[in-house]
Amino acid sequence: GAPGAPGYGGFPGQAQDPLFGYFSAVAGQDGQIDAEELQRCLTQANFSGGYKPFNLETCRLMISMLDRDMSCTMGFNEFKELWSILHAWKQHFMSMDRDRSGTIDHTEMQQAVASMGYRLSPQAMTAIVKRCSTQGKITFDDYVACCVKIRALTDVFRRRDQSQQGVASFSYDDFIQSTMTI
Amino acid sequence: GAPGAPGYGGFPGQAQDPLFGYFSAVAGQDGQIDAEELQRCLTQANFSGGYKPFNLETCRLMISMLDRDMSCTMGFNEFKELWSILHAWKQHFMSMDRDRSGTIDHTEMQQAVASMGYRLSPQAMTAIVKRCSTQGKITFDDYVACCVKIRALTDVFRRRDQSQQGVASFSYDDFIQSTMTI
Repeated sequence: GAPGAPGYGGFPGQAQDPLFGYFSAVAGQDGQIDAEELQRCLTQANFSGGYKPFNLETCRLMISMLDRDMSCTMGFNEFKELWSILHAWKQHFMSMDRDRSGTIDHTEMQQAVASMGYRLSPQAMTAIVKRCSTQGKITFDDYVACCVKIRALTDVFRRRDQSQQGVASFSYDDFIQSTMTI
Repeated sequence: GAPGAPGYGGFPGQAQDPLFGYFSAVAGQDGQIDAEELQRCLTQANFSGGYKPFNLETCRLMISMLDRDMSCTMGFNEFKELWSILHAWKQHFMSMDRDRSGTIDHTEMQQAVASMGYRLSPQAMTAIVKRCSTQGKITFDDYVACCVKIRALTDVFRRRDQSQQGVASFSYDDFIQSTMTI
């Protein structure tokens, strides 16, 4: 094609994807981004909109959730996957935060977790929601961090519960490694 | 005793403890502090000295480490216990950060974890240290967050490994509750 035509450049196909613009603006030569670059990327893309930008720890959690090779970095395919997960969570959060106060309450957070299909006891639910609250409320950042953690920890558990009996055994080393890296 | 004499006031014994000044300046009527109050308390006490003050997530971790009643708050006795643990960790960090750059490197962090008595495989150690790094370095806040998590997760594991065989079983609900609340 002529210069400037669709597909022109070193990344055929990807150049047309608007997300690639956000990603490539922060990615280094290796085509990977770390937690600080992801934070910059999501802030520049104004992903959080009216909500506060994600803090660094939440961005680390996002990377760890999809980090299959334990590199603590993220390629473009994982970034696209993350974007679509985050987008769905944001829609859900906004549907609960009707008055645009920026926060939801404990009951709404429990309903959000239940609606994602996680079956937890009332006791576990209460403890989790309390832990992710700030002054009794859950901000968008708190909510995303909580969603990321439940998803990643459920994956860890499921991989060790191969007979699907709802019970998993861990060696000490495996337990510490798999929970510390989330 | 005469007004103003040692021990005067509503908290006999505690009034002489210099730590009680820091604690009571932020604690509410209930004598408990939450993560935001702990952050304010440690900042006002200038605990981190030349290092950056603790971020809120690290303060949440500190509370969860000693939170036996799952209240997400901390009383004065737990605060004193935390202070002494943090003080020992700070001494250790400063002994490694000889040039006062504010950070330590991966090798130093691995040595720190090993010196606390945690026996982990090289693979687990590498993954953990990578996860707690910021641009390849570990700040004082990263280091404390990592120490708090390993200690709390090891406690979780040990309570379920009653025969001390190095293996523990979790139900899904127990696994999610105990790891999500750290």
